Amino acid sequence: MDTGSIAWAITATALVLLMTPGVAFFYGGLVKAKSVVSMMMMSFGALGLISVLWILYGFSMSAVSSPWQFAGNPFADFGLGALATGENANTDLLGATFGATFAIITVALISGAIADRAKFGSWMIFAGVWATLVYFPVAAWVWGGGWIMSLGETLGLPNVIDYAGGTAVHINAGAAALALALVLGKRVGFQKGITKPHNVPLVLMGAALLWFGWFGFNAGAEWLNGLANVGLIVVNTLGATAAAILGWLIVEKLKDGKATSVGAASGAVAGLVAITPACANLEPGWALVLGVVAGAVCAMAVELKFKLGFDDSLDVVGIHLVGGVIGTLYLGFFAIDTGLFTGGGLGQLAVQAIAAFAVLIYSFVVALLLGFAIEKTIGFRVKNEDEIAGIDTFVHGEEGYALERV
Amino acid sequence: MDTGSIAWAITATALVLLMTPGVAFFYGGLVKAKSVVSMMMMSFGALGLISVLWILYGFSMSAVSSPWQFAGNPFADFGLGALATGENANTDLLGATFGATFAIITVALISGAIADRAKFGSWMIFAGVWATLVYFPVAAWVWGGGWIMSLGETLGLPNVIDYAGGTAVHINAGAAALALALVLGKRVGFQKGITKPHNVPLVLMGAALLWFGWFGFNAGAEWLNGLANVGLIVVNTLGATAAAILGWLIVEKLKDGKATSVGAASGAVAGLVAITPACANLEPGWALVLGVVAGAVCAMAVELKFKLGFDDSLDVVGIHLVGGVIGTLYLGFFAIDTGLFTGGGLGQLAVQAIAAFAVLIYSFVVALLLGFAIEKTIGFRVKNEDEIAGIDTFVHGEEGYALERV
Amino acid sequence: MDTGSIAWAITATALVLLMTPGVAFFYGGLVKAKSVVSMMMMSFGALGLISVLWILYGFSMSAVSSPWQFAGNPFADFGLGALATGENANTDLLGATFGATFAIITVALISGAIADRAKFGSWMIFAGVWATLVYFPVAAWVWGGGWIMSLGETLGLPNVIDYAGGTAVHINAGAAALALALVLGKRVGFQKGITKPHNVPLVLMGAALLWFGWFGFNAGAEWLNGLANVGLIVVNTLGATAAAILGWLIVEKLKDGKATSVGAASGAVAGLVAITPACANLEPGWALVLGVVAGAVCAMAVELKFKLGFDDSLDVVGIHLVGGVIGTLYLGFFAIDTGLFTGGGLGQLAVQAIAAFAVLIYSFVVALLLGFAIEKTIGFRVKNEDEIAGIDTFVHGEEGYALERV
Repeated sequence: MDTGSIAWAITATALVLLMTPGVAFFYGGLVKAKSVVSMMMMSFGALGLISVLWILYGFSMSAVSSPWQFAGNPFADFGLGALATGENANTDLLGATFGATFAIITVALISGAIADRAKFGSWMIFAGVWATLVYFPVAAWVWGGGWIMSLGETLGLPNVIDYAGGTAVHINAGAAALALALVLGKRVGFQKGITKPHNVPLVLMGAALLWFGWFGFNAGAEWLNGLANVGLIVVNTLGATAAAILGWLIVEKLKDGKATSVGAASGAVAGLVAITPACANLEPGWALVLGVVAGAVCAMAVELKFKLGFDDSLDVVGIHLVGGVIGTLYLGFFAIDTGLFTGGGLGQLAVQAIAAFAVLIYSFVVALLLGFAIEKTIGFRVKNEDEIAGIDTFVHGEEGYALERV
Repeated sequence: MDTGSIAWAITATALVLLMTPGVAFFYGGLVKAKSVVSMMMMSFGALGLISVLWILYGFSMSAVSSPWQFAGNPFADFGLGALATGENANTDLLGATFGATFAIITVALISGAIADRAKFGSWMIFAGVWATLVYFPVAAWVWGGGWIMSLGETLGLPNVIDYAGGTAVHINAGAAALALALVLGKRVGFQKGITKPHNVPLVLMGAALLWFGWFGFNAGAEWLNGLANVGLIVVNTLGATAAAILGWLIVEKLKDGKATSVGAASGAVAGLVAITPACANLEPGWALVLGVVAGAVCAMAVELKFKLGFDDSLDVVGIHLVGGVIGTLYLGFFAIDTGLFTGGGLGQLAVQAIAAFAVLIYSFVVALLLGFAIEKTIGFRVKNEDEIAGIDTFVHGEEGYALERV
Repeated sequence: MDTGSIAWAITATALVLLMTPGVAFFYGGLVKAKSVVSMMMMSFGALGLISVLWILYGFSMSAVSSPWQFAGNPFADFGLGALATGENANTDLLGATFGATFAIITVALISGAIADRAKFGSWMIFAGVWATLVYFPVAAWVWGGGWIMSLGETLGLPNVIDYAGGTAVHINAGAAALALALVLGKRVGFQKGITKPHNVPLVLMGAALLWFGWFGFNAGAEWLNGLANVGLIVVNTLGATAAAILGWLIVEKLKDGKATSVGAASGAVAGLVAITPACANLEPGWALVLGVVAGAVCAMAVELKFKLGFDDSLDVVGIHLVGGVIGTLYLGFFAIDTGLFTGGGLGQLAVQAIAAFAVLIYSFVVALLLGFAIEKTIGFRVKNEDEIAGIDTFVHGEEGYALERV
């Protein structure tokens, strides 16, 4: 393979890896000062655990040989020894590592729903089992030759488009987040305004690292394509995100009279989520429109939890699930050549909806059952008094800050 | 085009995009805790707005077909639809996105002059109009076939050298910053020492992201040149910056008896600004000298505002305008082959000075008029009592930190 | 040279440069709020000084023409003018800049041993002289044709493997750190628990930037190899690091009952250190094992300073020296083809041990003598009362934070 594609693959891998610390800081800044360690540790724990599981057996599970196989054989290349000694070791290992970074961040995203109240050990068990039962198979379904990848052919319709993972990553994580929010229940004193962020610069730092890394996330897989379509992906990853910032801020301004920095950061993430499946298949102008829509709709969607009464603490549902669905379905209308308004019929929309809905339900159900199993056995949530006293000291024996000059 | 150049173009684009959050953190850490949200939001607002404007019509304006055209036709490719469906869509869109990141950061840089006291909505209007009237045309003048790019040929002198934007970016932003500092007037209680930074690690984080991203800023355009001169650019981007840190710290030590971390960060930025136009046209040794000079001179220049009585709050003039002028004129003396002391005559210096002066004046005048127009209509500056109470709560309804353990 | 390799070389250079701010934030977050400026400034000072020295004469010293030459002639290409005007200027300058970033970070790493109590000027003198007497020559020994690089041939054994610098960087820095900890003595009130970090998000930010940059550190040199082995390097840089996080957290959990975020960050760094020499020569499975071992052993090793009574404040010895030795010797057992258990004999272990031991002793002795010389002349350590009052105000006239809303 040409060195240019390889160079970009290494860079993209490093970029996507950096996104999980980005999630840690984005989420960490949004919670209370007494929960910041716990919040960040769910991401850093995922970095440790999911990387190891992926190398051991996750990569093996993420490709299937026939469309209706549930997942690859986990012991097909346990520990990647065969890959490392194979003919294409260099590019194969690079591809495997790039894939690992997607598994890690998908798991980390879920943690935003259970801020302030989850035991670290229980989270780590959830993370490992959910990755094994949900992420690794779903990656095979969407990208590894599985049923979603083959759905268009199966139905005689256009292929599902999920270029960088609106379904495999964001809907997947968002649905699991909703399940865990239900399992763990509301934080003490849950109500609108409870999530006043303790450190806004940290939130924006997280958002900045996410946007930066997202160029690797969206354009990374182009290394297998001779970088032939990176221009479109890159301009859309800029445009949709920027437009979503504006969309979110405008809704805030109209609704509350003030545009906020947390809104700007959340809008950026909403735009990035929405463009993720669509980045390679929209003209730049339609990407701008998608961004505005995603920003505006997500700005309204994050209010839902207060009306419906589930404590998705940091809006994983309102941003990743809603944004992921918006981007995935939007392709049904505006995908280049195949969208309903861009030269195609209803087929694109149909396959998009089936894929999104299937992953949403599957991830939600497994996460719900798994979450309850953990809660009923070793316990998932800390006691109210420990939550009030501060989960960081209770779970990790640490405090996020010691700023007094002593 | 070869994939190696494309790989670097994607990477460079992501790097330069990250610089604007870098500006947000550098500036944000320097202001008071009660203004950090406002400060960072001026950069994040620019990220949202300028990206969208660039895609809509800014890119179209940034290239002209004859040297004395003021700017390109904004509707030539509104929304980049033609580019996206053209023959060279991949590289054309990549180039357009790379260009966007320069427009964004140039606007964001200006905001440092009006810390603690600017309305967000008024800033956003200024940002959009200034980009349209100044940045997009000036980019055309300097890089898009315009009169500055053609000046050497017109006068029978060497071509203007502004490789990565000493004139188009730093002098341009610095002149506008000076204008806005005059329009908005001094902060309440303005005097030396008022800008005690509220968060030094955040300042250094911003500076670090800036330096990191600046490799993309300075060496990015080499993707159009087969990466043939990146070695020189990269060594100069390291050397001049490092030398400027030392230059600034030495002046501080001699002047105040102590070398400061804010000085190190400011010195780094001064060095980066000065090497920006010159990175591809100086031998490494002369780049070191430029760095020392820029660091030392800017360390003294930032005192000017107290003597002259304008409140360029975070030294956009003292660093970007002064540093940009130093780097631009230095080429007249030491540019490889064409500098006065390196084989050429006075021609290089002449064209450098004309370009720098023209952009300085143009940007200053437009920013001044535009700033006054905004101030006299919807108002640009908040009331003194709101500034004292804290602009973050007044404008954004947010506080930067909530660090108490409750 | 192909543009893909060049693209990766630029990117890797920027990545490794970013690691030194990463060190600044990792170390800076770990100390007290009143020492954060001092801590970060030792890294930023190294960025300024070592870059300039490298360009002036360090690069010239880092390659020798015969194995038993101590170091290259510093005046061979003073200021890199010859390189810049040579036939291969582009790639030569790029390689020289990449090398600079290694010199910078090696020096910066040392500073963790002398938190809270070192004079900045004295540190800068130490940094410059140690780089000149130790790092530049050792780089020549290990990578520039020197005796360590030739040791295998000399002894009729396998070549020393120190791909990205376990010996040249981490053992080297760790040994110097131990020496300086002894020279400066214990902090006031030194005992277990003294290093309660003042800003955990800053620690994790530093660790995240380090991991991110480390892809450039470990895989960067592959640009000279057509990127032929990057896949293995990248997967190992992910796997060993992740496994080390788990290894460290498990030891903490067993020993203290709680897994900490500082432990996760420290484990990541320990894993990165250990995989540094070994990244190109271990199968992914053995890299995971190395990671677990390094994480677990370093988690125990950082207790040593309390038992042995030296104040290596931020565990440069426990992580970089110990982790570097583990990774270097581990190759003796598990290096592909040549390790004792992977097809070779004892020869690999022998040359690894000789190289590690030689650099350890050399660096330690020079740092000790140099440190004492500075302490006895201009003084290296501040007075106890200034340490208690806060080194930031005493040395730099700055405070890290001003968070009150005034």
